[in-house]
Amino acid sequence: MTRVTVWNEFRHEKTDAKVQSMYPDGIHGQISQFLTAAGFEVTTATLDEAEHGLTAEVLEKTDVLIWWGHKAHEEVADEIVESVHQKVLEGMGLIVLHSGHFSKIFKKLMGTSCDLKWREDDRHARIWNINPSHPIVAGIGECIELEQEEMYGEHFDIPAPDELIFVSWFPGGEVFRSGCTFSRGNGKIFYFQPGHETYNSYYNKKVQQVIINAVNWAKATDNIQPAYGHFDALEK
Amino acid sequence: MTRVTVWNEFRHEKTDAKVQSMYPDGIHGQISQFLTAAGFEVTTATLDEAEHGLTAEVLEKTDVLIWWGHKAHEEVADEIVESVHQKVLEGMGLIVLHSGHFSKIFKKLMGTSCDLKWREDDRHARIWNINPSHPIVAGIGECIELEQEEMYGEHFDIPAPDELIFVSWFPGGEVFRSGCTFSRGNGKIFYFQPGHETYNSYYNKKVQQVIINAVNWAKATDNIQPAYGHFDALEK
Amino acid sequence: MTRVTVWNEFRHEKTDAKVQSMYPDGIHGQISQFLTAAGFEVTTATLDEAEHGLTAEVLEKTDVLIWWGHKAHEEVADEIVESVHQKVLEGMGLIVLHSGHFSKIFKKLMGTSCDLKWREDDRHARIWNINPSHPIVAGIGECIELEQEEMYGEHFDIPAPDELIFVSWFPGGEVFRSGCTFSRGNGKIFYFQPGHETYNSYYNKKVQQVIINAVNWAKATDNIQPAYGHFDALEK
Amino acid sequence: MTRVTVWNEFRHEKTDAKVQSMYPDGIHGQISQFLTAAGFEVTTATLDEAEHGLTAEVLEKTDVLIWWGHKAHEEVADEIVESVHQKVLEGMGLIVLHSGHFSKIFKKLMGTSCDLKWREDDRHARIWNINPSHPIVAGIGECIELEQEEMYGEHFDIPAPDELIFVSWFPGGEVFRSGCTFSRGNGKIFYFQPGHETYNSYYNKKVQQVIINAVNWAKATDNIQPAYGHFDALEK
Repeated sequence: MTRVTVWNEFRHEKTDAKVQSMYPDGIHGQISQFLTAAGFEVTTATLDEAEHGLTAEVLEKTDVLIWWGHKAHEEVADEIVESVHQKVLEGMGLIVLHSGHFSKIFKKLMGTSCDLKWREDDRHARIWNINPSHPIVAGIGECIELEQEEMYGEHFDIPAPDELIFVSWFPGGEVFRSGCTFSRGNGKIFYFQPGHETYNSYYNKKVQQVIINAVNWAKATDNIQPAYGHFDALEK
Repeated sequence: MTRVTVWNEFRHEKTDAKVQSMYPDGIHGQISQFLTAAGFEVTTATLDEAEHGLTAEVLEKTDVLIWWGHKAHEEVADEIVESVHQKVLEGMGLIVLHSGHFSKIFKKLMGTSCDLKWREDDRHARIWNINPSHPIVAGIGECIELEQEEMYGEHFDIPAPDELIFVSWFPGGEVFRSGCTFSRGNGKIFYFQPGHETYNSYYNKKVQQVIINAVNWAKATDNIQPAYGHFDALEK
Repeated sequence: MTRVTVWNEFRHEKTDAKVQSMYPDGIHGQISQFLTAAGFEVTTATLDEAEHGLTAEVLEKTDVLIWWGHKAHEEVADEIVESVHQKVLEGMGLIVLHSGHFSKIFKKLMGTSCDLKWREDDRHARIWNINPSHPIVAGIGECIELEQEEMYGEHFDIPAPDELIFVSWFPGGEVFRSGCTFSRGNGKIFYFQPGHETYNSYYNKKVQQVIINAVNWAKATDNIQPAYGHFDALEK
Repeated sequence: MTRVTVWNEFRHEKTDAKVQSMYPDGIHGQISQFLTAAGFEVTTATLDEAEHGLTAEVLEKTDVLIWWGHKAHEEVADEIVESVHQKVLEGMGLIVLHSGHFSKIFKKLMGTSCDLKWREDDRHARIWNINPSHPIVAGIGECIELEQEEMYGEHFDIPAPDELIFVSWFPGGEVFRSGCTFSRGNGKIFYFQPGHETYNSYYNKKVQQVIINAVNWAKATDNIQPAYGHFDALEK
């Protein structure tokens, strides 16, 4: 059974009534709920726990880590980022959601600024499926309509993704590469744009299905850790 | 249950004693054998059958098509190539083996000459795993050692593959991108180099495992056929 | 001096007053005009000329071919498509504009249906620069605003482009990968979406600059034709 | 005129007679020599200079930075790595040579371990041209033969390169992706494998030509810095 750890900064929910009302159990609570219903073994971890809830023991038991953070990226300890980075390279899947684009771990894996344009305007968004044969879009159809979502616009300063899965349309005139896959070491990474803390995106069935599909896609197969370092010749 | 059709030109086996002795049931027979043992529902089809064994009915029931051809590529009827091409775009997986690089269907899907260097010299080959987290290499380890394989050397005139899975080393001094994935329409395509008709590559357990993995990778997920053509505006 | 051949179907301009008034010298005439001003050596060729104006002699003297076609794709002779295809593989650059997405040559190079959604609604379009360091976007800025352009929408059934350069936003709610590069053989290919026959896109200075940049990008460098076929070992 | 800064660790040359004899003016001296002859404006910088020779002023005047390091990667100050990283994202080209695969700057840009197999055995190497139409291989031909080069073998733990340019063959049985391009922010990066300190690779005319071509390829075109952050709607 695939083991998922849902990491959430969990600050907005404690201080902002609007967020609290939208996600009374925290964003991690809501994500856990639909992942558990989908049959995964789900744990949560949050910033204010010891080691941000990401101890070596927790990471050891994590097949796929989900990351939501926003206003406290800088409070994530570098040692924890190092541990998570190492686990990703060894094969732990990583799903980075929404404002997690600016997290230390995503920037470390990408090597770029991961910057973008943004605007909160309470307007709708449409996420187009650009890669209809990809397992991450199974059951999604041509697009996902969201009643409200924060605008994220290009240029998005990431390396060219290995696979471009979604491109979003915003009524203000912008576009955004809103679903992107990357491989780093043995780890598979999926960035997915929806999830502003005051909107109901994580209640949307298609958004949930994408995250469920992405967990299945990102979990490691029975793969090897290659040998590195000095190597004796195989041929005379 | 995934339904696999193994297509083989099946000419060498009828006329060449060495090939007959290596593959008494035909190359398709040997490939069928290990795919059946792996739990797939396997059918075979060969060039000299009516419609080359690839009737609309057969293609309709095929999740993944495997293609081995060599000296009679030109005898494959264009209409059959069209049907296979259409099915691939609709989501049928395609695994092209060895000299199938010069088949009409592979060239049509690639849009290039698919040409390469070659030499039969009865020497060994080593297929390096370049993409250790890919599902196609699950269980394979760092490389596959073949006692004998035909040399195929760069430059291999294909589009840049979506994913480079294997690179082969040959004792004569050549290298070759010997495992490559491509997406075309909804179809997933895997090219895999081993399989000269006089060598025992399809008895090699790792070669078999790669083909088994590739069938699982290439079969369609529950994906959509996008709508094309005139489209009414979604926004006023 | 880079030699450009601008190929145009040149039918709309003969029969439709609106197109005639927009492009009195033909779409090829307008494209030639700004390419000549940019310092290229420019020739034109059109469908109704002998061999569609694309004789072996013309192709021999063409570094980069530009292709605009729409309603008469099927009238382009297969032999000419073969010649153009062969020249692209040998290193001739190819820039496919707008409805050329459905041309025989583009479909042959892509291996897919190249289908898409479309709508003529006289509304505006915004072409976002997704790849700000690419030579094709030099001098373009963050986006190109067009007063009117035909909507082309995803899914666009092409192989994953080697490089994604532009993504378009349409007011009706659609997005489109409107600038894409591909390599096939030694040839570099650029697809660029603007250019509906009744709109003034080829008078737009930024659209012109993109095409000028693309010619410079697509022209062959001093590269080799690799040796193919039987190859003697380099090592004992 | 393109301004190149050649950065070299410059330690082996001071302590190892064999290296000193191979590169009496330092590896940076030899690289400078052929780049200057090619018409570039060349400066050098080395580890033991103040700020490793990479002051803000030097970086400001650098279009393309070349990086050779080996045994003292850890001595490069993090602040300098940050400055170089920032300049790359802004558009400075970066060419990483040989053991520079393990430099802080390359690892930071890649987000992976950049690990590999290696062996010094004084044997030859053959670098195959996999991408014959790329500007970096102009004038190179099908392969580069080196009398002696250190073996670097797969798996090479890098993200999938944007373009694979060279694959090396080693007599001990290994292969290696020895020429790879990447884009990060506005910066273009080229990794090139040859250049062990005791071998004469930087005297090889083809190796020199590749580096010259790569400088021309990596230098920024007239591109923009996109606007990031809060963004007002373009549409009502």
